[in-house]
Amino acid sequence: MLNDLPTPCIVIDAAVVARNLRRMATYAKSHGLAVRPHTKTHKSTLLGRMQLEHGAIGLTVAKVGEAEVMASITDDILMAYPAVDPQRCARLAQLARSKTVRVGIDSTIAADALAAAARSAGATVGILVDLDVGHHRTGVQSAGEALALAQHIDRSKGLRLDGVMFFPGHIASPPASQAPALTAVGAKLEEVLSLWRRSGLEARVVSGGSTPTAYQSHLVGHLTEIRPGTYVYNDMNCVRGQCAALEDCAARILATVVSTAVPGQVVLDAGSKTLTSDRCGPAPDSGHGHVLEYPQAKITKLSEEHAQVDVTACDRAPKVGERVTVIPNHICPCVNLQDQVWWKEEGSPPRAIMVEARGKVF
Amino acid sequence: MLNDLPTPCIVIDAAVVARNLRRMATYAKSHGLAVRPHTKTHKSTLLGRMQLEHGAIGLTVAKVGEAEVMASITDDILMAYPAVDPQRCARLAQLARSKTVRVGIDSTIAADALAAAARSAGATVGILVDLDVGHHRTGVQSAGEALALAQHIDRSKGLRLDGVMFFPGHIASPPASQAPALTAVGAKLEEVLSLWRRSGLEARVVSGGSTPTAYQSHLVGHLTEIRPGTYVYNDMNCVRGQCAALEDCAARILATVVSTAVPGQVVLDAGSKTLTSDRCGPAPDSGHGHVLEYPQAKITKLSEEHAQVDVTACDRAPKVGERVTVIPNHICPCVNLQDQVWWKEEGSPPRAIMVEARGKVF
Repeated sequence: MLNDLPTPCIVIDAAVVARNLRRMATYAKSHGLAVRPHTKTHKSTLLGRMQLEHGAIGLTVAKVGEAEVMASITDDILMAYPAVDPQRCARLAQLARSKTVRVGIDSTIAADALAAAARSAGATVGILVDLDVGHHRTGVQSAGEALALAQHIDRSKGLRLDGVMFFPGHIASPPASQAPALTAVGAKLEEVLSLWRRSGLEARVVSGGSTPTAYQSHLVGHLTEIRPGTYVYNDMNCVRGQCAALEDCAARILATVVSTAVPGQVVLDAGSKTLTSDRCGPAPDSGHGHVLEYPQAKITKLSEEHAQVDVTACDRAPKVGERVTVIPNHICPCVNLQDQVWWKEEGSPPRAIMVEARGKVF
Repeated sequence: MLNDLPTPCIVIDAAVVARNLRRMATYAKSHGLAVRPHTKTHKSTLLGRMQLEHGAIGLTVAKVGEAEVMASITDDILMAYPAVDPQRCARLAQLARSKTVRVGIDSTIAADALAAAARSAGATVGILVDLDVGHHRTGVQSAGEALALAQHIDRSKGLRLDGVMFFPGHIASPPASQAPALTAVGAKLEEVLSLWRRSGLEARVVSGGSTPTAYQSHLVGHLTEIRPGTYVYNDMNCVRGQCAALEDCAARILATVVSTAVPGQVVLDAGSKTLTSDRCGPAPDSGHGHVLEYPQAKITKLSEEHAQVDVTACDRAPKVGERVTVIPNHICPCVNLQDQVWWKEEGSPPRAIMVEARGKVF
């Protein structure tokens, strides 16, 4: 049945998804943590609904368009991304009229823009102060800055100060060696939260967690919720980063060999417009994904619609027309390139499910 | 008016597009070469139609879905990509019932699959033998292999042997120093074509040309047509490869600064889901695109929705909420991430045009 699917395409193993969701739910429950999955990975209401059925308290998004899609299945949305322009703020405020909407921000400019939009819509937008815990991408730098921004938000009509968020993207070491870095994050949180307390401000929500750190989140302390995204599907970043095994990778790219003309090489019909050019974080020189049927093969080069695969280390090589399965380095942007993915349940033919939030760039 | 567009988005300067199209048309005409633009760059019928109006003899695609979109505006399509699976071949053969459809292939397996589909549809598919001239991606390796495949095609009912195609993707040096490499391509073509002639086979079509080599195509000899794609928009690959100037870049990404919290850095709302992770070929360490308003800035790191920009070398830095213009490393996969782009003509507000062939992965 998989042989009838047009390639390249993404096939999702429903049983592996269910196992990934159960594992995260069980971990979080045992540590008293809420899960608010980041939907950037699947961008699909089917998967979002499954996450909610597995106990997620709400969903995380990066874009307003994603928030609008996910609002059809949940009443509680966190946009873990600063909204600063008037258009984005207006659409968020509109959503906040009927839903619990929170936004993570790190500037008074964003606070003022959201407050103006909220007042204009007659809504209240919840705010999490985005704290830089070492990833150095966004987030206020110090406890003092976190307090100043929190006080500004607390004074702003239309906003509701809800707490703190952070993204521990700098912690990519194997889970077994993450404890010191996570303890340092906890210390920074403690500094911020105690300063807030002394100033009469409360953080009801402390939101953190990435997929690589997800199962070590209890080491941080202070957390009320985690926001893993990739864990639903997993990918070679997870496998080589030792936070998932190959058999935990639920999303696989089916590709066809289209050329074997160059000696020692085969070419797949999955290029950068399918696999993306994202390198593998933990192993940047490992190539552009893992070919399941030919584990010695290396995807050495991508062009837009071609993957060049070095098969010189393989005992045998695939022929033109043969199909292979690739686990990509980074599944999230791969899904974002597809209008639909194929959902495969044991005993049933694959069925197309829509990636409804794909292309919601705004 | 550009300030009202939601970001991130792609804005196309219509005047620059027209200049790029005129320049290519003038060059090709002066050298007796036909132009068959590769539509992978724009994936839009508006642009394809403009290329045809500027004298293109037909259009090039990589995917059957793209062919089906472009068939609405031209009767002459080349799929410069091997079709080997039955589904792809069947759809191409269907198209070949009413259109001139050619496919570039490098294996007898592909030839047999296309022949079977053509016979089944009662159509004839034109074939170009794909020749490896040094890029080592696809293409038969030797004149002997090219002859053997051509003879196989010539004997196949349902197929029509039309000629040879190649992609000189290995020639990325500045145009001024391409002559030796292009002469070597010409020598390889001469070897193939003379062997075909001696065997009674004719190549009515000799199709080559990439954007970096486009304006040197006359140095190859034997060519009947060229297939540049990127030239319609251009990008930093072209600028740093010296085949276009900054002012020839017609497609620009409008982005908003969403965070300045980390010292020495600003963050744009255009990450790898907008700019892609494609490095700049001629300058892999130059970052992820060029910020027009801040030429000293360097986009050092992308995550899915964030671009981290090092502004330490800049005299001044943009503020949160400010908009900037980015010329990406590689425009083709960026366009493929957008449902629509904004078309800007002098004196008119930008209007949305659809990227109809986006997501046509099959």
